Amino acid sequence: MATLIDNRYGKARVRVLKVNKNGDHHSVFDFDCCVLLKGDFSDTYYTGANDKVVATDSTKNTVYLLAQSEQFKSVEEFGVIVGKHFLATYSHVSEVQVTIKENVWDRMRVTYEQREHDHSFVRSRDVHTASIISVRGRPAQVTSGIEDLLIMKTTGSGFEGFYRDKYTTLKETKDRVFATMVTASWTYNTATNVNYVNAVAEFKKSVFDIFALTYSKSVQETLYIIAKTALERVKEIDEIKLSLPNKHAFGFDFTRFEGVKNNNTVFQPVEEPSGLIEGTIKRAASKL
Amino acid sequence: MATLIDNRYGKARVRVLKVNKNGDHHSVFDFDCCVLLKGDFSDTYYTGANDKVVATDSTKNTVYLLAQSEQFKSVEEFGVIVGKHFLATYSHVSEVQVTIKENVWDRMRVTYEQREHDHSFVRSRDVHTASIISVRGRPAQVTSGIEDLLIMKTTGSGFEGFYRDKYTTLKETKDRVFATMVTASWTYNTATNVNYVNAVAEFKKSVFDIFALTYSKSVQETLYIIAKTALERVKEIDEIKLSLPNKHAFGFDFTRFEGVKNNNTVFQPVEEPSGLIEGTIKRAASKL
Amino acid sequence: MATLIDNRYGKARVRVLKVNKNGDHHSVFDFDCCVLLKGDFSDTYYTGANDKVVATDSTKNTVYLLAQSEQFKSVEEFGVIVGKHFLATYSHVSEVQVTIKENVWDRMRVTYEQREHDHSFVRSRDVHTASIISVRGRPAQVTSGIEDLLIMKTTGSGFEGFYRDKYTTLKETKDRVFATMVTASWTYNTATNVNYVNAVAEFKKSVFDIFALTYSKSVQETLYIIAKTALERVKEIDEIKLSLPNKHAFGFDFTRFEGVKNNNTVFQPVEEPSGLIEGTIKRAASKL
Amino acid sequence: MATLIDNRYGKARVRVLKVNKNGDHHSVFDFDCCVLLKGDFSDTYYTGANDKVVATDSTKNTVYLLAQSEQFKSVEEFGVIVGKHFLATYSHVSEVQVTIKENVWDRMRVTYEQREHDHSFVRSRDVHTASIISVRGRPAQVTSGIEDLLIMKTTGSGFEGFYRDKYTTLKETKDRVFATMVTASWTYNTATNVNYVNAVAEFKKSVFDIFALTYSKSVQETLYIIAKTALERVKEIDEIKLSLPNKHAFGFDFTRFEGVKNNNTVFQPVEEPSGLIEGTIKRAASKL
Repeated sequence: MATLIDNRYGKARVRVLKVNKNGDHHSVFDFDCCVLLKGDFSDTYYTGANDKVVATDSTKNTVYLLAQSEQFKSVEEFGVIVGKHFLATYSHVSEVQVTIKENVWDRMRVTYEQREHDHSFVRSRDVHTASIISVRGRPAQVTSGIEDLLIMKTTGSGFEGFYRDKYTTLKETKDRVFATMVTASWTYNTATNVNYVNAVAEFKKSVFDIFALTYSKSVQETLYIIAKTALERVKEIDEIKLSLPNKHAFGFDFTRFEGVKNNNTVFQPVEEPSGLIEGTIKRAASKL
Repeated sequence: MATLIDNRYGKARVRVLKVNKNGDHHSVFDFDCCVLLKGDFSDTYYTGANDKVVATDSTKNTVYLLAQSEQFKSVEEFGVIVGKHFLATYSHVSEVQVTIKENVWDRMRVTYEQREHDHSFVRSRDVHTASIISVRGRPAQVTSGIEDLLIMKTTGSGFEGFYRDKYTTLKETKDRVFATMVTASWTYNTATNVNYVNAVAEFKKSVFDIFALTYSKSVQETLYIIAKTALERVKEIDEIKLSLPNKHAFGFDFTRFEGVKNNNTVFQPVEEPSGLIEGTIKRAASKL
Repeated sequence: MATLIDNRYGKARVRVLKVNKNGDHHSVFDFDCCVLLKGDFSDTYYTGANDKVVATDSTKNTVYLLAQSEQFKSVEEFGVIVGKHFLATYSHVSEVQVTIKENVWDRMRVTYEQREHDHSFVRSRDVHTASIISVRGRPAQVTSGIEDLLIMKTTGSGFEGFYRDKYTTLKETKDRVFATMVTASWTYNTATNVNYVNAVAEFKKSVFDIFALTYSKSVQETLYIIAKTALERVKEIDEIKLSLPNKHAFGFDFTRFEGVKNNNTVFQPVEEPSGLIEGTIKRAASKL
Repeated sequence: MATLIDNRYGKARVRVLKVNKNGDHHSVFDFDCCVLLKGDFSDTYYTGANDKVVATDSTKNTVYLLAQSEQFKSVEEFGVIVGKHFLATYSHVSEVQVTIKENVWDRMRVTYEQREHDHSFVRSRDVHTASIISVRGRPAQVTSGIEDLLIMKTTGSGFEGFYRDKYTTLKETKDRVFATMVTASWTYNTATNVNYVNAVAEFKKSVFDIFALTYSKSVQETLYIIAKTALERVKEIDEIKLSLPNKHAFGFDFTRFEGVKNNNTVFQPVEEPSGLIEGTIKRAASKL
């Protein structure tokens, strides 16, 4: 015999473009949405009886219907709406997991006007993520994050004094190129009245401020200070998870060529292998 | 104040090709390896003091050195070796997480010989995964899996009797195309004398046997029977996690064209949105 | 003033799955199709007047309608059908360019049966390409090819005696790993009664036979012999274009570690940079 | 017999990061480079004799050596330098093809400073391309372009009055979402004193100005006006090739749900199929 001990199902990669129109001035939400349901669904696994199965096609329809009928100021709010809807509509659903990747569009700048354009946009590189877990009887748990934010500094970073043994060939350096693709996520300590858009913006600013203005003794140290700074700036966050791959750009080895010195200006970026540094930082309880 | 509550670091995407040579008859392990360390590493986060930090470059070196010096019959065994090495070498390391993606190479067939070639290979599409968690003082926990195994049946699959409400537009069907990209993983109930290569092969056979030979009433039902069958065939596994996206291929809507009937022979595959069905199946305790 | 000197338009990435059913025994064509039209379409560029524009949506519809109504034994034949249709239907179309990528599905093997399954399939890694140019008043020009065929030999390949100067650091070798992703295409010297499926199969066999059984003195030499062999085997081809990236797997540098020798068994595959070798080989005119 | 009628070879995906340092104020060139050689190389194809073959590894070395020793204000200039070098160094090379993809890095903005940061950067989404063909005895032919520039307007675009027949199901519209990924390239009419950076910037501005400020009657019309505008603004360009895929975002079909109207605010973006519109526009000779 075999027992089903966990399951979830739904529709992934539902692509939604919602345009909010104020005359000719438009703003957009452009996101991919995955909605997974948990609940009383074991029958279809054991016997193929589908009478409780909400078709994933219906789940997709629902996402578009809610996107049109509901107002929301962030994809996090939309995820909460979707969770509430499924719990309210289907008594045999116990949990709704909504995962969202929001594409970021900047307003287009045109030559002949000093302002940004009303309804023309240029896609940015980084992605805004959101994850909303709605369990029956509990407040929704909202997580925000960013992905694919690729940043680089060409000085102001070193790596010295590390452990040396017979496996070590890396040289110490006070001046290296430091490039990383920031992935971060944080869960809010409340689901009430959070300005999610502001939280993401403040986190991103913390990344830029620390990355640019602080000498980096290790990727780890930079990771910690970024998280600490963001926790200070956003009160609705208690904990941040950060993943900073070290996207190496090594100085090319010019020593093999006669009469050629290394000016420390030409580097060879490599995709793999790649260092990977991760950490979770928590706001310490205030001492009382 | 901010506290570091979790952390790990290491080298990702270390690409290894190990060739085992028996004269001109070669066999290969071709894999990407990620080695992450946990332990007493908080200093570098808090202060940038790196004296306990094993450089990720040294970790990479170690992987290649072990790949050459050690004999192994599977990447799972290699992962166990790597875990042991880091725990034995660095007393301040408490846990080693090795994640491996093994590329599968089939032997090349040549026209003029009836047998497979000795040292020429063709890359297969699917990937073999392995994850080995080594915690100081405990046996290594070994997980195997597969990814990117794309399969399709053009009949022998339906979806009927599902929940209908005002959000439902999907029609019932007794005959649809069913395509899915199998992702599966399972943790072994022992780390002693497991034939990992055989376990992966038996799991894959279970997928093929059930997928091909069983009428599918729902993706969920097929998922369950595949897992149940694999649990029966491989005694070293107690639990299997399966993820089966429903890679839809819809019948093209010919009704919009005058005099054209739908012969149910032409379909439009779509990448997104995509159904997603997941389940974890456990071997039930034997009744006594 | 600015003049439109060339233009084409149409629908790209039209995904078609055609199932040929003989009872429960099915065979499939699974392909992505791009159909581009040339002709009297300059008005819409100059003035936005669309009256001659066949909507790309209609082009897509036509592909599905033809896929259902027509019989074909290869995607090359389907491309010829599509070209004929557009030239016959729209007098202002002068040229139709059909580009096809066919996904290859192998029949699934199941444990309990000795034969391959009737209607279950496993996706292969390589892709079959076809390009059909139909110009009004001329026979269709049919090109076939393959892509993404990744092959490797772990011995039987060297690279010696190459040009040396102050830019050279590469060492000569009699025994290296040779991996390459084969991209090839060839145009048929006739559009009548060609067995396209056989031509692709014979080309692929030529790749395998030469790659496996011939010592490679350079990628260039291997490229030439593959093409020469295929020209000998397939009479309907006069010319073959081959692109063989050299997907390097370098021996890891063990000399930096005390007491460690290089056994020539552990290699580091690198995605980039990558050698790239290309050549076009033509059947020489028979001497008379 | 089989004859080699065309060939080229070299190193692809050579990744270069060149940092120009003025104290702490840095600027960067970050690009992937492919260098292919043509010339007297047939021996290695026919016989495996490699004595004239410049190893692709040496080609890679040369790229890094030139990147360090030479000054250049654009990747186009670097490509010209590389071409000259190979023609000057190897008398049996007749043509050098350099293809470059330059990653665009914007300066990072930090909260506490009003100016952009000196040596910290954020990667942009679009890519700058360059192609430099250097044939012995002729001036280098320089082509610039852009790729991956994804833009969208949520109104100000329609598609009406197109050809209707039995294959047509698309409805006419005066108000649709228009999204496209701009790919463009242009060859300069001179290789002397061209400000390539300015040309790329002016082309991009032309895209934005026309896309945002002009009502689009068809993708074709927009393509033409963009090219015409860029030709007016950049005198060193005579001809522009543009490819504008129509990345559809269809209004979701709300008519299937009782009591639900379509507000024209919710769209379903689809990756495939995708319209594809291409055109080459040439500056007309001045009338005399």
